[in-house]
Amino acid sequence: MAQERLVAMKTETVSFSVVRRLPRYYRFLSDLHAAEVTRISSRQLAELMGITSSQIRQDLNCFGGFGQQGYGYNVEQLHSAIGRILGLDGLYPTVLIGAGNLGRAIGTKMDFEANGFRLIGAFDQSPEKIGKEMRNLTVQDVATLAAFCREEHPLVAMICLPPDAAKAVCAVLYEGGVRAFWNFSHYNILADYPDAAVENVHLEDSLMTLCYRLTHPTGVPEQDET
Amino acid sequence: MAQERLVAMKTETVSFSVVRRLPRYYRFLSDLHAAEVTRISSRQLAELMGITSSQIRQDLNCFGGFGQQGYGYNVEQLHSAIGRILGLDGLYPTVLIGAGNLGRAIGTKMDFEANGFRLIGAFDQSPEKIGKEMRNLTVQDVATLAAFCREEHPLVAMICLPPDAAKAVCAVLYEGGVRAFWNFSHYNILADYPDAAVENVHLEDSLMTLCYRLTHPTGVPEQDET
Repeated sequence: MAQERLVAMKTETVSFSVVRRLPRYYRFLSDLHAAEVTRISSRQLAELMGITSSQIRQDLNCFGGFGQQGYGYNVEQLHSAIGRILGLDGLYPTVLIGAGNLGRAIGTKMDFEANGFRLIGAFDQSPEKIGKEMRNLTVQDVATLAAFCREEHPLVAMICLPPDAAKAVCAVLYEGGVRAFWNFSHYNILADYPDAAVENVHLEDSLMTLCYRLTHPTGVPEQDET
Repeated sequence: MAQERLVAMKTETVSFSVVRRLPRYYRFLSDLHAAEVTRISSRQLAELMGITSSQIRQDLNCFGGFGQQGYGYNVEQLHSAIGRILGLDGLYPTVLIGAGNLGRAIGTKMDFEANGFRLIGAFDQSPEKIGKEMRNLTVQDVATLAAFCREEHPLVAMICLPPDAAKAVCAVLYEGGVRAFWNFSHYNILADYPDAAVENVHLEDSLMTLCYRLTHPTGVPEQDET
């Protein structure tokens, strides 16, 4: 059912750098909306986000544009519109694999529902972790994952495992119909499943970038993200 | 002492998008080196990384270039050179704040030393967490953080806290000489301390990007990272 929905969606081609900025827009607009700001000019939004207002107009024009001359943006409307573009109303059925510290941090801290996902299962291979509670779920034995996929049809998996373990589990998941991966392991999922949707989180890359900033204190012209 | 070292470093200005790619080069070269590959052409490296070989040459030329016509790159030399550019030999003294699931995942899983940092203290405010062991360190009471900074001079802090708690702790850290932050909270550190080096990790942004990929399966032209 979730897959039918995917196929039915409109599919514009938008450059990836624009897509990468959408979550930032959404995040800043969430904060503005929570602070009961009702409208904002592209200049004000640009200042807040540390980018140019022409960048904002250009980005949003990819999706038809939302501002009104002399008024700016309606915060609530723009927030909802970007949420719909991102597909955050999707609630894609999701499993979490690996219930160690990282898996537990991800599983308990993230607001999945607000970000388009619904966690329907958590798995680990360690006897000490199987049977423990996590976010209204009981951690299950990863040996039962194939059967779970056949019955519950998860579409997304969050991989909180070392690379070696990740490869074997991803094979089971893909075979079971999972087509999207939030990957914290260093296993290169796309190399084996080029049609999957993959977001890799390489925490080391961020750490090394911080190291560069420290080592070259005047050598980084801009901070591109906040 | 670490701060003297900072001032003494060469400070080229290199575009931020190039800097962002350096950790990826380093990561791929680490894997090649571990697999005992001694040399690689820019074409082969490009294919492996999913970018163009002219991009690679252009990026590396920012730092003087490393390849030899007809030979390609010496893997070990390029790996070391990029490590030096990133400053990974720095071993900057670092504290970790927040010993919940996320802090514990970060504190126990990451190879800090390989990425330029040396963890010298871990702190939390919760009585259940204070006194627990983490990576050869004992979690200390965050109330003692100011005194710790005066004595041990950490230069970097990893913030694994909710935004409200993060603001107060960052004030103590900045006052205590910390000038670089690896920030997992949503607190906007740069807004209050514009001269700090900050790397924000917004896991939600990555999750929302995955949601976009799922919702627009043919709408994302390229996967820019592996």
